[in-house]
Amino acid sequence: MQLKVTQENLSKALGMVARVANSRSTLPILSNVLLKTDGKRLSISATNLDIAITEFTGAKIATEGAITVPARLTQDFVSSLPEGVLNLEVVDHKLSITTEKYASTINGVVADEFPIMPSIEKPTIIKIDATSLKKGLQQTLLAASNDDSRPVLTGLYLHTHNGELYMVATDSYRLAEKKLGKQIQESKLLVPASALQELTRLLEDKSDVTVSYDDQQIRFELNSAYLTARLLEGSYPDYRKLIPASFQTVAKLSKSEFQNITKVSSLFARESAGSITLKINDNKVSITSVASQLGENTAEANAEVTGGGEVTLNSRYLADALNVMSGDEVEFCFNGKLEPCLLRDTADSEYNHVIMPLRT
Amino acid sequence: MQLKVTQENLSKALGMVARVANSRSTLPILSNVLLKTDGKRLSISATNLDIAITEFTGAKIATEGAITVPARLTQDFVSSLPEGVLNLEVVDHKLSITTEKYASTINGVVADEFPIMPSIEKPTIIKIDATSLKKGLQQTLLAASNDDSRPVLTGLYLHTHNGELYMVATDSYRLAEKKLGKQIQESKLLVPASALQELTRLLEDKSDVTVSYDDQQIRFELNSAYLTARLLEGSYPDYRKLIPASFQTVAKLSKSEFQNITKVSSLFARESAGSITLKINDNKVSITSVASQLGENTAEANAEVTGGGEVTLNSRYLADALNVMSGDEVEFCFNGKLEPCLLRDTADSEYNHVIMPLRT
Repeated sequence: MQLKVTQENLSKALGMVARVANSRSTLPILSNVLLKTDGKRLSISATNLDIAITEFTGAKIATEGAITVPARLTQDFVSSLPEGVLNLEVVDHKLSITTEKYASTINGVVADEFPIMPSIEKPTIIKIDATSLKKGLQQTLLAASNDDSRPVLTGLYLHTHNGELYMVATDSYRLAEKKLGKQIQESKLLVPASALQELTRLLEDKSDVTVSYDDQQIRFELNSAYLTARLLEGSYPDYRKLIPASFQTVAKLSKSEFQNITKVSSLFARESAGSITLKINDNKVSITSVASQLGENTAEANAEVTGGGEVTLNSRYLADALNVMSGDEVEFCFNGKLEPCLLRDTADSEYNHVIMPLRT
Repeated sequence: MQLKVTQENLSKALGMVARVANSRSTLPILSNVLLKTDGKRLSISATNLDIAITEFTGAKIATEGAITVPARLTQDFVSSLPEGVLNLEVVDHKLSITTEKYASTINGVVADEFPIMPSIEKPTIIKIDATSLKKGLQQTLLAASNDDSRPVLTGLYLHTHNGELYMVATDSYRLAEKKLGKQIQESKLLVPASALQELTRLLEDKSDVTVSYDDQQIRFELNSAYLTARLLEGSYPDYRKLIPASFQTVAKLSKSEFQNITKVSSLFARESAGSITLKINDNKVSITSVASQLGENTAEANAEVTGGGEVTLNSRYLADALNVMSGDEVEFCFNGKLEPCLLRDTADSEYNHVIMPLRT
């Protein structure tokens, strides 16, 4: 392999890919990235066996070939070099990277040993607008569980319902649902949230994303990259019955004021695992938090209120949800002290965020 | 105590002071800050018994008084409030902080229990220009030791020599010396580096700093704050004999190029505890580093060279030193492989940085 590539392009591609390589894996080659010529492009790949990412970048290829090299060292090194053209050459399983003033040799491992994820046979193919996909992922992934004891909840449920495509995540304490729009092809896919976290970093272009899948794997194809992930097995809970259809109490208020009073109240809720109490009446939302040792706090914001009452929540869940709302105004809706609360954006009817109250 | 103060002023003052309060101290009140009226100002103080900092901020005082409250909670709370006027009032050892929309009560401890550092009796007083002091601290403190087994080296040696004031720090692997200018009053002070780290954060104004000291303590008075610290005991090593007077090899080169080649080389020096080898000849400085497992690297920069030779250093010490040099061009000087190396700024003859080589 012998080629020229700009420092900017190679550094960017390595930055996208290298995170997936894991230096603590029992299989040493998984801490490497695969560099491989591909027509007039250079492909840069990394995998942890559950996820594989490949980025493509333009290069001037003199001789075809491939090599794998340590991901972290190569990324740190290339990103430290000055801008300009880099000469890459493989000799004896070593990658030399040279410029006028820098000459380095990085010991590699032959490309044949690098694990390739199986290709998707007879895939089903759908297209999703990249901007909606990215926004939807940002609004839902926060609700996915990190707890491997219920693997189904560590996934994002990408599925169709009445001809519309939805994405949903829940850790059983909170639930986020986003409607992505019309989709004729029926789908029921459970995609690992960790793979989709990586996908959000790759999603930068505005064109459609081609999604192809079979029973076992899913692949997202972007302009200059693709990400492949193993699907999770299991059936997703029937979450729709958890979202109340009507509410006794609805408070409409400024998102930024709601964020401020939540943040200030959370400071006094550190001792009580984030427990804050929302009281809604008289055209205002007030939040009370008590730290037995340190003191107490009440903060309030003006609101347009129907009904009234109070409910106790984890302040972090409320802050997280407000943080991913896009509009300036939100609605906070609930029925009783132990019933699920709903947060929605008055400007975005496609997004629902449910938070279960704390028992007090 | 009853007063009004702006959120901006109180938040800034707490930010300067609260870091010194330590929530892990065995004396619980040391995790508090002392708020106290002082004429037309509010004073905010914290101490860890070795260092005490007091900041003053303008306030509209209705009733005089004092209280201590938990530093971290109070700082986090005040910094989260919106800008505007805050009402502070002490009732029953509790501090209430209110605005139109926020009402909080923070449990306090009576001010009498807060430890006050003894005042400096019959102080010697010198004045130092704040800008030079700040610059000098940034250029020397990095060389002070963190190792309590030789307490003298955890201090900065502020002293006069031939009618000039100097500051010096060394951890015995490297040494930084800065000349601050003429000073008639003879001084020999050993000030804890940790106290001076705090001082650099407080130093923002351009006026003179008044320094008063006796045998035990030193106080730095700024426009709106003062910092008091216990002096260290012991005699400082006779460091001047460590700085070579002449050099066989001198390389003059661009600081930013020197920084780049040092950074790139350090990536390949992770396995060897940062060991890099500088070779100086033929009008260039080249740095070689070898990682037995991963590969090797050579990087070079043009230089104006007298003499020639090679020396092995810790790349972090070289990077740290280059990072605090002010000019665009530096000189790297050395004699033999085991002799101290000197880095100096061609634009700043007041600053010397010595690095001991590694044995190879």
